[in-house]
Amino acid sequence: WIISGVKSDKHSVSAATPTEEMNGAGNLMDFLDEPFPDVSTYEDFHTIDWLREKSRDTDRHRKITSKSKESLWELIKSLLDAWSGWVVMLLIGLLSGTLAGVIDLAVDWMTDLKEGVCLSAFWYSHEQCCWTSNETTFDDRDKCPQWQKWAELMTGHAEGAGAYVLNYFLYILWALLFSFLAVSLVRVFAPYACGSGIPEIKTILSGFIIRGYLGKWTLLIKTVTLVLAVSSGLSLGKEGPLVHVACCCGNLFCSLFSKYSKNEGKRREVLSAAAAAGVSVAFGAPIGGVLFSLEEVSYYFPLKTLWRSFFAALVAAFTLRSINPFGNSRLVLFYVEYHTPWYMAELVPFILLGVFGGLWGTLFIRANIAWCRRRKTTQLGKYPVLEVIAVTGITALLAYPNPYTRRSTSELISELFNDCGALESSQLCDYVNNPNMSRPVDDIPDRPAGPGVYNALWQLTLALIFKIVITIFTFGMKIPSGLFIPSMAVGAIAGRIVGIAVEQMAYHHHDWIIFKNWCRPGADCVTPGLYAMVGAAACLGGVTRMTVSLVVIMFELTGGLEYIVPLMAAAVTSKWVADAFGKEGIYESHILLNGYPYLDVRDEFTHRTLATDVMRPRRNDPPLAVLTQDSTTVEDVETLIKDTDYNGFPVVVSRESERLIGFVQRRDLTLAIKNARQKQDGVVSSSVVYFTEDAPQLPASNPQPLKLRRILNLSPFTVTDHTPMETVVDIFRKLGLRQCLVTRSGRLLGIITKKDVLRHMAQMMNQDPESIMFN
Amino acid sequence: WIISGVKSDKHSVSAATPTEEMNGAGNLMDFLDEPFPDVSTYEDFHTIDWLREKSRDTDRHRKITSKSKESLWELIKSLLDAWSGWVVMLLIGLLSGTLAGVIDLAVDWMTDLKEGVCLSAFWYSHEQCCWTSNETTFDDRDKCPQWQKWAELMTGHAEGAGAYVLNYFLYILWALLFSFLAVSLVRVFAPYACGSGIPEIKTILSGFIIRGYLGKWTLLIKTVTLVLAVSSGLSLGKEGPLVHVACCCGNLFCSLFSKYSKNEGKRREVLSAAAAAGVSVAFGAPIGGVLFSLEEVSYYFPLKTLWRSFFAALVAAFTLRSINPFGNSRLVLFYVEYHTPWYMAELVPFILLGVFGGLWGTLFIRANIAWCRRRKTTQLGKYPVLEVIAVTGITALLAYPNPYTRRSTSELISELFNDCGALESSQLCDYVNNPNMSRPVDDIPDRPAGPGVYNALWQLTLALIFKIVITIFTFGMKIPSGLFIPSMAVGAIAGRIVGIAVEQMAYHHHDWIIFKNWCRPGADCVTPGLYAMVGAAACLGGVTRMTVSLVVIMFELTGGLEYIVPLMAAAVTSKWVADAFGKEGIYESHILLNGYPYLDVRDEFTHRTLATDVMRPRRNDPPLAVLTQDSTTVEDVETLIKDTDYNGFPVVVSRESERLIGFVQRRDLTLAIKNARQKQDGVVSSSVVYFTEDAPQLPASNPQPLKLRRILNLSPFTVTDHTPMETVVDIFRKLGLRQCLVTRSGRLLGIITKKDVLRHMAQMMNQDPESIMFN
Repeated sequence: WIISGVKSDKHSVSAATPTEEMNGAGNLMDFLDEPFPDVSTYEDFHTIDWLREKSRDTDRHRKITSKSKESLWELIKSLLDAWSGWVVMLLIGLLSGTLAGVIDLAVDWMTDLKEGVCLSAFWYSHEQCCWTSNETTFDDRDKCPQWQKWAELMTGHAEGAGAYVLNYFLYILWALLFSFLAVSLVRVFAPYACGSGIPEIKTILSGFIIRGYLGKWTLLIKTVTLVLAVSSGLSLGKEGPLVHVACCCGNLFCSLFSKYSKNEGKRREVLSAAAAAGVSVAFGAPIGGVLFSLEEVSYYFPLKTLWRSFFAALVAAFTLRSINPFGNSRLVLFYVEYHTPWYMAELVPFILLGVFGGLWGTLFIRANIAWCRRRKTTQLGKYPVLEVIAVTGITALLAYPNPYTRRSTSELISELFNDCGALESSQLCDYVNNPNMSRPVDDIPDRPAGPGVYNALWQLTLALIFKIVITIFTFGMKIPSGLFIPSMAVGAIAGRIVGIAVEQMAYHHHDWIIFKNWCRPGADCVTPGLYAMVGAAACLGGVTRMTVSLVVIMFELTGGLEYIVPLMAAAVTSKWVADAFGKEGIYESHILLNGYPYLDVRDEFTHRTLATDVMRPRRNDPPLAVLTQDSTTVEDVETLIKDTDYNGFPVVVSRESERLIGFVQRRDLTLAIKNARQKQDGVVSSSVVYFTEDAPQLPASNPQPLKLRRILNLSPFTVTDHTPMETVVDIFRKLGLRQCLVTRSGRLLGIITKKDVLRHMAQMMNQDPESIMFN
Repeated sequence: WIISGVKSDKHSVSAATPTEEMNGAGNLMDFLDEPFPDVSTYEDFHTIDWLREKSRDTDRHRKITSKSKESLWELIKSLLDAWSGWVVMLLIGLLSGTLAGVIDLAVDWMTDLKEGVCLSAFWYSHEQCCWTSNETTFDDRDKCPQWQKWAELMTGHAEGAGAYVLNYFLYILWALLFSFLAVSLVRVFAPYACGSGIPEIKTILSGFIIRGYLGKWTLLIKTVTLVLAVSSGLSLGKEGPLVHVACCCGNLFCSLFSKYSKNEGKRREVLSAAAAAGVSVAFGAPIGGVLFSLEEVSYYFPLKTLWRSFFAALVAAFTLRSINPFGNSRLVLFYVEYHTPWYMAELVPFILLGVFGGLWGTLFIRANIAWCRRRKTTQLGKYPVLEVIAVTGITALLAYPNPYTRRSTSELISELFNDCGALESSQLCDYVNNPNMSRPVDDIPDRPAGPGVYNALWQLTLALIFKIVITIFTFGMKIPSGLFIPSMAVGAIAGRIVGIAVEQMAYHHHDWIIFKNWCRPGADCVTPGLYAMVGAAACLGGVTRMTVSLVVIMFELTGGLEYIVPLMAAAVTSKWVADAFGKEGIYESHILLNGYPYLDVRDEFTHRTLATDVMRPRRNDPPLAVLTQDSTTVEDVETLIKDTDYNGFPVVVSRESERLIGFVQRRDLTLAIKNARQKQDGVVSSSVVYFTEDAPQLPASNPQPLKLRRILNLSPFTVTDHTPMETVVDIFRKLGLRQCLVTRSGRLLGIITKKDVLRHMAQMMNQDPESIMFN
């Protein structure tokens, strides 16, 4: 006790003078980072230690601040360092905006290439081709002599069964070609470029290392194959993959600044912002992007990141707007303008759409996960190319005959969202005109549906079934695939059908009590497009379980600020319904399926277990592998390192007292011993390793001691064995720990790692809680 | 060592059987909460323990879940419990929406009452009075025979110097009456009802107890006095106080459910959502409200709260819309519609407005804090009523002659935001008409400014100076006062002036290079209203340092989704400029001024101190007050409690070994001993207090032992003495601790409380970091 007191005093003196050994974790890095550049701080598929990363960054920051007072050059360097975060954001915004613009343009062109080609300039899409043509009339915007379908070009006949079959055949052929190219590129060059990428990005942001997942090759291949996959007409969207692409950009620019490239924690701040930029360009929704990153993707999201994300998202959206791929110089993807407000009674169908969205979400997640599990465990997974070819073939074969599935899904959604104006030539707007009425252009009263609408209803129903089924099989194949757009399409189709039904009901039965108050004959009271929008929000919500970011994205997407309440009602209903069947959204389900070590912020751990139930060693295990502060030899340490694969070892005063003094990382220990054996004379296998402040003076005949206090982390995280696991889980989540030591009355009992926590949580969730609580 | 091993085994058996003593903190509550109902868990002006609250809630939740399987009634009760959160949100939304509507209507009426009265119905405001009148023509919407100014009513003359002076006099009189009533009500009934309330709410949400701050009286008085204060024409807004009112509603409804009323942690979740509802009704901006709560106000904001906040904010906004106080059935307060897009070159004046906003923010914060400090430290603070009367008098005296300051600030902002349409009769839209041009109604080209505009410019400049000066003295007086609206007014005035300047420059010099590309003569290329909007955002940003929520609020406020980039550019510039002069926004400055124990999430602690430098006891202090597990008598404990005022005491194995086994709260100890002395036979002053699992069998002659393991928290939070303070600060922030014990090699060295951390941080911030690092 007295010695300890003296030591403590001595220490408080030494703390005031910043010697190198003061902060174990921080300063040793200089010494360890340099000599072996090939060994990185963390290994692949390992978890980072957030606290350690943070304290390293603070050290770096302190060093720069204190240097900045020395000279003008250092001051400029420190200012550059402070602004580097904003520079990275600017670069991310510019690059991801540009990439998104290029992808949009390429997808437009290649989607149309499946049907025909522009004779005046083959790199024009259908729309561009006809807009640049002088012969286009306003009534027939889609038809112009420059644009020729393949059959017309090859045989000269634009109409007839022969031309139809030839076009059909070529449509399938192009689709197969695109998807074959996509899957081959993914297989050969960048296996990580497949899927939506969001589950993996969530895992990476939570502190996991997956090398190469955000690399340059992934960026390049994902961009190219995304264009191919979307153009092939498969039931997938570009939104999730764009988030992945933006994160790759973020990772790329991190390597420009050592502040970010050398610190995994800081890197993740940049990646969070990049994810926001990705959604921002995917939908032209900067605020929605930031909220998506906050609500859905990110793990550690300080306010500083919030501002920077917003900046990156804005720059990205602005860059995209400058490229102007949609040709409407608007940020929004599906601009809508409705002429009538909504009425309270309409909340009933909106909530029903919410229920539908929740059910669709549940069905989709269960079926998709079951199918993906089957792919992983059976022969199916061995033929990814064949699978993609088969699904593409079936999709193209079934999609072509139906006009609502033949076109690109974004166009479909756009048409479904649209209100029927007077100039609308769509089949969906084929209402029976009342010749007695002459009204201003934009005020179209409710009218009975014409044959076109009934026809469209049938086709939409078929399209709905088709989309529901094929999306389940598409998501998870070895090509880039997002599911925002397919989900929204399902919802928009269902919503539009419901909307038309309500509209016709209101027209034919405007004397019913529910319609009486707000729907006089000849008035425009129901907007089917709004139902499509609400349905899309509900379905997207059911699959992803977003709420706030979803609503914000929806109204940024459509520019309709007045419809927050219907959107919110549908989103919340859909979340409640879907949550009743299972807590996990599609991303969490895929994380679980792939077994990533992701500690979800949302799961509440409510079981009554204690730290002692989770810690290792268990009751019949061999004792914990520890080092002592002054009685272990180099050989002992080397044996321990060889025999075990732990990430680190606790250091105790002695095996008898078991009083903990610190924790040493396996990697640091390996490097330090290797280093000492090479450079330090007299360090042999029988040298004693000292973790104490002073090594005793030994006679010259004895081997030289090896002093390793510098690599000892003197502030390991400890909890007592009685700590409830809910607190332990909370600590792991909030502080981002890798491991935590368990003590009782000051004695070291065991260790809990992040994987132990995850394993325990999984065990608790699957079993009946009763059986564990009172077994 | 062997004993410890056995104990550990024994424990893992007992952990599997849920005995009552298993979780020290949780279960003792039943026993402690009941017997002394007058003693609440936390004392006034103390900090709550978030971990403890959370674990209590988990316990409660577990109990309900396990009970729910017993009977249908219990199942229903558990469902009700699960839904109570949403019910509370619904109630908060309804009540705060209603209150906001009532406040808006009352303010409208009373503001107009200062100038005149409606003869047809005295409870009509000016606008309502004239709208209901049949004699109102469209050109002269503001004039109708039913509405009479006071002079007209009293003397019969509407015009002339006499009438002007009489109206002027009565205007001042009404203003003085309203503000006198407001300050008197606050003084007599609810002293906490003054100010904006946001600094205090931030502090409360961070885990501080201020009893009565959110009480029923505060709610009632704040609502009434807010109406009076705003109507008196003082330079203040209703937005901050509405947040306070909504939080009072939240607190009120918490008391309906024991889940929230008995748990300070859960209560704060509700309050966070209530704050969102408050902003939502203040501006009609539900999403902005949620983001404001997230970015500015809240401390602990889990995703669950995000969803609930959104729900509450929506219900509140929807309720307000149903009441429809602005008579335009829009959610938005200042609806604008601009006809032209903005151009890249305009970013320069927008950024200049950002700089202005930043400078204004700095000036305002410094001057206001200096004035408030003077108020606290000098005689001035002793005459709050006189101060309010004086400021109101000066405000009314100076405001009346200028038409831009006479009207309510919201109306002023609304006019400044507006684009000049063809029907606009405002002075600001008095441009010289070109008779040769006939154009459609809404497409007004740029024209030279007429005499009205020049006149308006002068009046606006005077109004700007007046607002800047008077707001500094107004904010912080003993009446409810928000500063969103005054800040926005300052920015809107400055912005409109800049906007008109740019517009005229573009008109007169459209051959200059910068204007050439986008501003042909006769085209409508500059929108001064947009400049006002950008200026308002910049000034609000400079004062509050909001960014994302600010931009979202601005565009929800105005419905202008296309102007994110200008708004963001101005907001970020203003934040950067203001941050360069001082990190704290107005709310943080007031928190510091009042000395609340608020641990800001945003401050980064970058100093190189260790836990050992902060912990108590210091070097020359008496040793730490500890209890031993089996050698302290009841008398010793009572002496310790009497002699010290610590919140709790660590329990160690023995004073020699100093090995920590737990922590016991002062309150629990007091209650347990009081209880035992009353109810338990044989417990006398010389009884030994045992914190061990089993007390030894003593001979009957000895006094009975008192077993207190039940109140012992077996999982106190510990760090080692070498832990860097940045980590300690992080832990306190993220886990919401009250105190943390410091150990070295398993021995207890000292304790760090939240106040120690705050004191240390303040010390580090004020002193030169160099001097501390290398002293």
